[in-house]
Amino acid sequence: MIITLDRKVSSKQKELVIRKIRELGFQPHISSGIQRTVIGVIGENAILAREIFEAMDGVEFITPISQPFKLASRDFHPKNSVVALEDIRIGGKEIVIMAGPCAVEGEKEILEIAEAVKKSGARVLRGGAFKPRSSPYSFQGLGRQGLEYLREAKKKTGLAIVTEAMEPAQLELVAEYADIVQIGARNMQNFNLLQEAGKIRKPVLLKRGMSATIKEFLMASEYIMKEGNYDVILCERGIRTFETATRFTLDLNAVPVIKRLSHLPVIVDPSHATGDRNYVAAMSRAALAAGADGLIIEVHPHPDKAFSDGPQSLNFRQFQEMMKELKHLSSAFKRKI
Amino acid sequence: MIITLDRKVSSKQKELVIRKIRELGFQPHISSGIQRTVIGVIGENAILAREIFEAMDGVEFITPISQPFKLASRDFHPKNSVVALEDIRIGGKEIVIMAGPCAVEGEKEILEIAEAVKKSGARVLRGGAFKPRSSPYSFQGLGRQGLEYLREAKKKTGLAIVTEAMEPAQLELVAEYADIVQIGARNMQNFNLLQEAGKIRKPVLLKRGMSATIKEFLMASEYIMKEGNYDVILCERGIRTFETATRFTLDLNAVPVIKRLSHLPVIVDPSHATGDRNYVAAMSRAALAAGADGLIIEVHPHPDKAFSDGPQSLNFRQFQEMMKELKHLSSAFKRKI
Amino acid sequence: MIITLDRKVSSKQKELVIRKIRELGFQPHISSGIQRTVIGVIGENAILAREIFEAMDGVEFITPISQPFKLASRDFHPKNSVVALEDIRIGGKEIVIMAGPCAVEGEKEILEIAEAVKKSGARVLRGGAFKPRSSPYSFQGLGRQGLEYLREAKKKTGLAIVTEAMEPAQLELVAEYADIVQIGARNMQNFNLLQEAGKIRKPVLLKRGMSATIKEFLMASEYIMKEGNYDVILCERGIRTFETATRFTLDLNAVPVIKRLSHLPVIVDPSHATGDRNYVAAMSRAALAAGADGLIIEVHPHPDKAFSDGPQSLNFRQFQEMMKELKHLSSAFKRKI
Amino acid sequence: MIITLDRKVSSKQKELVIRKIRELGFQPHISSGIQRTVIGVIGENAILAREIFEAMDGVEFITPISQPFKLASRDFHPKNSVVALEDIRIGGKEIVIMAGPCAVEGEKEILEIAEAVKKSGARVLRGGAFKPRSSPYSFQGLGRQGLEYLREAKKKTGLAIVTEAMEPAQLELVAEYADIVQIGARNMQNFNLLQEAGKIRKPVLLKRGMSATIKEFLMASEYIMKEGNYDVILCERGIRTFETATRFTLDLNAVPVIKRLSHLPVIVDPSHATGDRNYVAAMSRAALAAGADGLIIEVHPHPDKAFSDGPQSLNFRQFQEMMKELKHLSSAFKRKI
Repeated sequence: MIITLDRKVSSKQKELVIRKIRELGFQPHISSGIQRTVIGVIGENAILAREIFEAMDGVEFITPISQPFKLASRDFHPKNSVVALEDIRIGGKEIVIMAGPCAVEGEKEILEIAEAVKKSGARVLRGGAFKPRSSPYSFQGLGRQGLEYLREAKKKTGLAIVTEAMEPAQLELVAEYADIVQIGARNMQNFNLLQEAGKIRKPVLLKRGMSATIKEFLMASEYIMKEGNYDVILCERGIRTFETATRFTLDLNAVPVIKRLSHLPVIVDPSHATGDRNYVAAMSRAALAAGADGLIIEVHPHPDKAFSDGPQSLNFRQFQEMMKELKHLSSAFKRKI
Repeated sequence: MIITLDRKVSSKQKELVIRKIRELGFQPHISSGIQRTVIGVIGENAILAREIFEAMDGVEFITPISQPFKLASRDFHPKNSVVALEDIRIGGKEIVIMAGPCAVEGEKEILEIAEAVKKSGARVLRGGAFKPRSSPYSFQGLGRQGLEYLREAKKKTGLAIVTEAMEPAQLELVAEYADIVQIGARNMQNFNLLQEAGKIRKPVLLKRGMSATIKEFLMASEYIMKEGNYDVILCERGIRTFETATRFTLDLNAVPVIKRLSHLPVIVDPSHATGDRNYVAAMSRAALAAGADGLIIEVHPHPDKAFSDGPQSLNFRQFQEMMKELKHLSSAFKRKI
Repeated sequence: MIITLDRKVSSKQKELVIRKIRELGFQPHISSGIQRTVIGVIGENAILAREIFEAMDGVEFITPISQPFKLASRDFHPKNSVVALEDIRIGGKEIVIMAGPCAVEGEKEILEIAEAVKKSGARVLRGGAFKPRSSPYSFQGLGRQGLEYLREAKKKTGLAIVTEAMEPAQLELVAEYADIVQIGARNMQNFNLLQEAGKIRKPVLLKRGMSATIKEFLMASEYIMKEGNYDVILCERGIRTFETATRFTLDLNAVPVIKRLSHLPVIVDPSHATGDRNYVAAMSRAALAAGADGLIIEVHPHPDKAFSDGPQSLNFRQFQEMMKELKHLSSAFKRKI
Repeated sequence: MIITLDRKVSSKQKELVIRKIRELGFQPHISSGIQRTVIGVIGENAILAREIFEAMDGVEFITPISQPFKLASRDFHPKNSVVALEDIRIGGKEIVIMAGPCAVEGEKEILEIAEAVKKSGARVLRGGAFKPRSSPYSFQGLGRQGLEYLREAKKKTGLAIVTEAMEPAQLELVAEYADIVQIGARNMQNFNLLQEAGKIRKPVLLKRGMSATIKEFLMASEYIMKEGNYDVILCERGIRTFETATRFTLDLNAVPVIKRLSHLPVIVDPSHATGDRNYVAAMSRAALAAGADGLIIEVHPHPDKAFSDGPQSLNFRQFQEMMKELKHLSSAFKRKI
């Protein structure tokens, strides 16, 4: 349920409304715009208390939220949300490109990549320090050392950093180094991790689970937002289907569907989705055309020598060419890179 | 196996090569370019006869075709194929828009729609006279009468006509009225229908089966081409997945994948795929960005009154707005509508 | 809508009811039991005429059919349907085993197989004369010659014959030789073929499309039944999923789901579904346990030399062992093989 | 790689082999049978050291493990593994039935259920104290209090307890109360949780992720086993497909496939898979017939009042009837309940 306060509401009246919400066992989520304040009243069956609030001074009207996700729904926040980090705005006019290797492999390598992707127009450096791998015998990432290298790369290039945390116990450490904390597809319904990510003060990049419906994806974002962290960026990265020509099936339909249901920014990962560098440029263009607010792209100086996911990584030249094309294209959508 | 003939091959030598192919029990498929002629040698284990042909005069070299589809593969025809009908070229620089109702519902209606979609820039009028419906109790189309109305609409507007044939016995009739004969998703592996469609002299629009892999899709086109009809247009129209937010999952990955494996033109049907007009414009843009050569779009003057598929149909104004946007976008890809 | 007639209805009254159904533009489908006659009234919005029939003499009560399939629904025919051919009853107490090669390969081979599977307890011989193959370059079956060999095998062994028809034009020919006409998974929504199959006087074995929902499967059977052929046997044969350890995912859930929604007999094809002979015995047992009325199993004397589908065929010894096990098991379900 | 030691190997020789494994950076996993000892040598590229070990005294022969999972593979342990807890053996002749509510709802309720399911033949009581729920606004379980109630139920009935842990930090607590610690489908690739579960001294019930291939499922079990906990029970619980007649598609094919690839016990959860109590008995029978070592079934005294998953829960009478049927059936497989 959403309470829209009167334009001339006094701070005393507002205070009373919030107190009443808490008294009834619900959570108030306050969103103050220029002209008005709206309060999300979150909790099971909150709508049953509708009349109590309608009768209070300063309350203009009440809107039920029909979707099972509340804070993530467009009903709650009709305008697009913009996640801000330093001078970067994700979800605004700019299309934000995140690029880098699958895993941080060494200091020299990550610095080289950071400089290359920055030169081509990326704003955020990606790279895993903790890697979720299907096999326990595969390379699991450099851990804290990898985070140090990312910090080094940030210092040298000014790029913001996005990197993954795999468990609640890692969140604090990762949040210390990262500008955006990634939660991977395999953890999209690791609800404890989501809840803890809701308590950090860093934006969270939440990847769609490979068999998650869009509704489940938005419910997962709700777990984070409910704890007070509204800076959630959703990332479509391919779903499991019967088709084997691509590693996963990048579901670009998710972009307009999410944009309709939710106010959260949406980015697309064509590298993991297709698993094949031959398709990354085409699907990147298509993602922007579908309305994505950004891309996350795997780039490696020598894809054939990458510790992981080489076949889907672009080399520097390929990335540069694609970026040129995307910049041109983004202006056709009245956006920019 | 592909035999590439010498530039200076004599017609006598060429003749001998073709005769030898037939003698060995294979089919010759001849593709004469400006500079050279290549001959596809089709039949099981054709490659075993490689040395016989290498020794013949006028043969420059032999290339095996690694894919199970032969005539549809890019190995056989490295350049994009262009399907020509009247002044329309599908697979060339122009992006061809096909539009119209799900089913032909009446003469007045189809004329009205034809004029509206033409005005907005469509080149081909779609509309089913024979409708495959899940339920035997649903409207099954107007049949021959529907074809007559389409002919009328063509006469009035000059639009080309695409309409579906559902069985071998209908092919002749449909081909008499249609400029492009459609084979629907549910018939993608109706092999008798495919073979008969290979014998008509009209281009065939082949829709991907809802659970067909891309390889199976290309194998289906091979059934048509093998009979001598090379004018096949492939159409991605959504696959079955677990996601229910859209009716099917439009698999735009198929566009660059097919473009890499095959020379055939590829168009996209965002209307049937998403089943929701709210997503048609976004997915149309994305389809063009992914490299599609055209779109097939459902348009109806009063979608809420359509006999079938109303929720996914655009009305005239929505179609017009989308077309404006797509024209602008196509120039960013150096193509035109 | 179902009209249940009074026990004491006169033949005159019954006549009048049927005439009225036709007058209103609906189809009457009559099912005469020992105690009563019920009439299915089939046509769009038939339920709107409910009151007209309730007022007629001899009508006891009216039942709406909530499902989109009518004649196939358990509402229409609460007891299990039994499809009878010669001395075989499919859908009754006996579990009917159909077995044989994927394709008829020759006279000697099919006779040898027929004798072997009969000895082990099969009642029906399977074998394709017309084969739907993904590739136009694969073996397409022996055609009419194959049908002749099947007839020969029937003459020698007394086994009934099930074999596939791929298009309306083949139906008459196949029905002349076959005791059960099979419609394959790829043709499950070849609606013209279904309708024509509804006009023949032979039972039809309808295989589930590899991406068909159970509702669509039942709608496909409705296409056949609507034309007057009620002898439809449904066959679950695996659906397309992301799992690649088996060729398809045999969906045994379909057995109890169909049994609940419909009165039609259900058999299971574990050979095509799993694509691997190692799993055929386990999934055959599971199919019977789930409630299947029969199995259709691929058997070949030398699976490694089969023209098609060798890896999923059992050899004679394997089939014999499995049958022994299944006979024992069926008695635990109070059924018999 | 597996090292099979000579029957007459001395303890000194064995010692030297193990030391060498460690020296080379690999992990030794020792499995001592009555006649021989085999040692799994685990680590990337262990096979490259083959010759070193072949030359050592006491080594009889070396076997490579072809699968990406090693300790879970049947190559490593050709006989079926049996997980023992108190007097229960999972993976042996007995088919073990686990039953209980989705979530522990209160002390009285769980005691009532425990007594009822015990009476019908269940050996293990299921019930969630920590519940992973799609929505943060749904009932999340009673937590530690729920565990206390389970302990109480165990004391009263002697049933063993299986209950879920959702994050590494919960493992110690849950392991204190549970006889079997469950890792849920949504956490099947929560690798940190898997690793920590490998360090506890309780059997782990690992549920298949809803979009996990069987290979990924076995790789997940490898994460647990690699840490030294070999007592892993695998649970098939339905995969995501396009079919909506059941909540998930129970993939019984997984049972014989896993049995072929791995030595681990496999149980089946027909309640979560189908989401509908009408199908639980049929799919339970089918699971046993496919070779499952046990079942995990939802039972609730008043399914319509359950806090969660009511539609798929059996009531006491339904469970009792099903158990009677399953006991009878299990003897047909020469097993017992």
